Amino acid sequence: MGNDAARSAGVTQKLCTHLAGLRFSDMPERAVHEGRRGVLDWLGCALAGAADPTLDHLLPVLEEAGGRAQATVFGRGVKLGLLDAPLANGQMGHVLDYDDTHMGGTVLHTSSPVLPALFALAERDTVNGRDFLLAYAAGFEAGVRTGQASPGHHKGGWHLTGTLGSLAAAVAAGKLLGLDAKRLAHAMAIGATQAAGMQQNRGTMCKSFQAGRAAASGVLAGLLAERGFDSSLEIVEGTRGYCRIYSDVARPEALTDELGSRWEITRNGHKPYACGVVLHPPIDAVIAIRSAAPVAPRDVSAIELRVHPHVVSITGTVEPETGLASKFSIYHSAAVALIDGAAGIVQYTDQRALDPEVIALRRKVTVTTDESLRTDQAHARIRAGGHVHEAAIEHASGTVANPMTDGAIEAKFFANAGPVIGAVRAQQVRDLVWKLDALDDVRTLIALLSRDAPLK
Amino acid sequence: MGNDAARSAGVTQKLCTHLAGLRFSDMPERAVHEGRRGVLDWLGCALAGAADPTLDHLLPVLEEAGGRAQATVFGRGVKLGLLDAPLANGQMGHVLDYDDTHMGGTVLHTSSPVLPALFALAERDTVNGRDFLLAYAAGFEAGVRTGQASPGHHKGGWHLTGTLGSLAAAVAAGKLLGLDAKRLAHAMAIGATQAAGMQQNRGTMCKSFQAGRAAASGVLAGLLAERGFDSSLEIVEGTRGYCRIYSDVARPEALTDELGSRWEITRNGHKPYACGVVLHPPIDAVIAIRSAAPVAPRDVSAIELRVHPHVVSITGTVEPETGLASKFSIYHSAAVALIDGAAGIVQYTDQRALDPEVIALRRKVTVTTDESLRTDQAHARIRAGGHVHEAAIEHASGTVANPMTDGAIEAKFFANAGPVIGAVRAQQVRDLVWKLDALDDVRTLIALLSRDAPLK
Repeated sequence: MGNDAARSAGVTQKLCTHLAGLRFSDMPERAVHEGRRGVLDWLGCALAGAADPTLDHLLPVLEEAGGRAQATVFGRGVKLGLLDAPLANGQMGHVLDYDDTHMGGTVLHTSSPVLPALFALAERDTVNGRDFLLAYAAGFEAGVRTGQASPGHHKGGWHLTGTLGSLAAAVAAGKLLGLDAKRLAHAMAIGATQAAGMQQNRGTMCKSFQAGRAAASGVLAGLLAERGFDSSLEIVEGTRGYCRIYSDVARPEALTDELGSRWEITRNGHKPYACGVVLHPPIDAVIAIRSAAPVAPRDVSAIELRVHPHVVSITGTVEPETGLASKFSIYHSAAVALIDGAAGIVQYTDQRALDPEVIALRRKVTVTTDESLRTDQAHARIRAGGHVHEAAIEHASGTVANPMTDGAIEAKFFANAGPVIGAVRAQQVRDLVWKLDALDDVRTLIALLSRDAPLK
Repeated sequence: MGNDAARSAGVTQKLCTHLAGLRFSDMPERAVHEGRRGVLDWLGCALAGAADPTLDHLLPVLEEAGGRAQATVFGRGVKLGLLDAPLANGQMGHVLDYDDTHMGGTVLHTSSPVLPALFALAERDTVNGRDFLLAYAAGFEAGVRTGQASPGHHKGGWHLTGTLGSLAAAVAAGKLLGLDAKRLAHAMAIGATQAAGMQQNRGTMCKSFQAGRAAASGVLAGLLAERGFDSSLEIVEGTRGYCRIYSDVARPEALTDELGSRWEITRNGHKPYACGVVLHPPIDAVIAIRSAAPVAPRDVSAIELRVHPHVVSITGTVEPETGLASKFSIYHSAAVALIDGAAGIVQYTDQRALDPEVIALRRKVTVTTDESLRTDQAHARIRAGGHVHEAAIEHASGTVANPMTDGAIEAKFFANAGPVIGAVRAQQVRDLVWKLDALDDVRTLIALLSRDAPLK
């Protein structure tokens, strides 16, 4: 056995042994607090997403085909089955492209697959906030580390929130169910064997569907593993394991790198803008210019952006025709950022994608790629009325190096959740989540999340 | 646009336009008859598989988490939801590794994902046998042709019955639902975006789970597309399309090659043995030797097999410890074939995998690989009591070049189904399936497939 093979032998079982043994008391306060931030931010995204028309296509199918009313669909007056509510909640969590993003060696919107799986199980069984947060953190470890073990995964064309999300949700579900190390490894492999999601479907309803599907796959994987359903025990490092078939480069040893000392949940990021994460630096730059000096859109002759090449390959849509497609258009994003000074939900509707003012302005946007920039850097130059305005962004807002404050996350939550569940209940949710580790029964929180639940 | 790009432009939409427009009267009689053979053979495999312990792990989870009783679980006295029964039926159809195999430029067990999807929908709505057979054939076209467009797919480590099966089931479901060309392309893409299944899990409960998952994904895809759920319209040929991310070689133009004149269902194969399809040639060879002259296992000093290298890479398990694992062991297969003169369900149980006589004999098996052989060829030499016996197989039984007769398929069906639903009902099923195109309501057939249905 070579050195590489020796270092990677049994890494899936090592990871699962570690995760199965974790207790809440092992979590550093910083990890706990990132868990609280992650739950609050994600709940807001899901509640805001609940109103998206995409859900009107999904929910009737699940109501007809799905299970008995067991688990709450957030922001809607309906319950669905234990495998169906996570699909709906995962889709609504991701549909606005507003949910958290982990960019530590991978690109994973971890919460949209993981949290719906945990909420569904926490509605079935009595679960306290400490176990909930610990399982959430375990999902991050499994999903992010498998991504780090598969460095070519994103480039390969996969939607990592669907693929890695499936096994992240499976491990989170398995941890919440209290599985031992072997069964947790089975859960992870049953999650992996359902791992799917194609970037080809970006800009369509399928993108957020993939997040929901991953959540549902995770619940199913956890429940099957609990019942003794078996699998390979080397699902990541095996000869046809995850890091070999979903990636052209395999680094299985990354699965256990700094295990126990590095908590991946502490490296999570949150989005101030409701669009692809790589658009955050150029939007920051345009808003910075606008903040420094007012620029009237009609005076603009050119918006010149300089970004990492990766940004254009993901968000190069020049003329998006729908709100979902506009979330992956750097042209649209720069235009609305200049017009509105914002890039929230209302900047990415079907209506704005077809707005003549936006269309006229986005045709003045040109993009230059620059390999020397990081993906969280950008430069913008705006020519307007004989003036040239410039701004450079070093670390986009919402990244680990430039995080959203607790206050900013709270403000984002209120803006997202208030219109759906009302200001009073939004405050109650906020209060519960900031003290989630003191909550004895997560159902208390869930009861506040359905649109039709009575106000207290 | 280069010639290659021109030839592959819009192939997904071309395929879906063709399939959406197909009528039963377009089907050649040979395709119809292969449809009847496929349904009969698969129903037997599913009914026999219904008793497998794997299902005892799956069904309680689906009964708890799943939907209202809408669709029959074959061979069991239970109904499950519209998305759950296909999962159970797909798993039981594939669990014995006894189901049909298409090897025309791909390796796809098409029926285990496709038929459970169709049966679930045919229990919800009144469906006649002609529409059922046509949708079945449409599933073959979509699944097999996408496999042909992705020549590196199997080598890449995917379990094609899970991956291609998902989009095959989606297109079959969409065709049964009468979708137009655009919505059928959406169904195909929603199926593809759920396409999963890892060879790493071969020999475990996950392998057949992947077939069931594909069936359920197909139903969901069809129902969502019917409701206007959208997707990429270039899911196969797009820049991050199926044939580019699931395969290191892309041949998107294969999707529409000889479309309309070549019916992929006519190239389906059926297994006389309950194990990996590539084991059929060496089993044939061992049984041929045994048929020519009795060979007592205790006299055997060596069983020397010569096969294509691919056979060993898939079935090289030397000491399988479970029935499921033994289905992918050339050593086990040669041993039981010599002892029993058969390789059916009872040759691949946990008990036989641990049988001392089998273990002693399989340790005498040696395998040589030979690039000059096709995967449906094999050579065997058995040394016993001073004699040397030899046999060479040109085309394994059950392949297109050496197909099972209708009588052999019927005999296999009775052996599989009789113990589960009884001889009388098995004959009724046989009669209905041989005249499936004359059946006005497929529910008449389904009513005979539940173990607890009353005998007529």
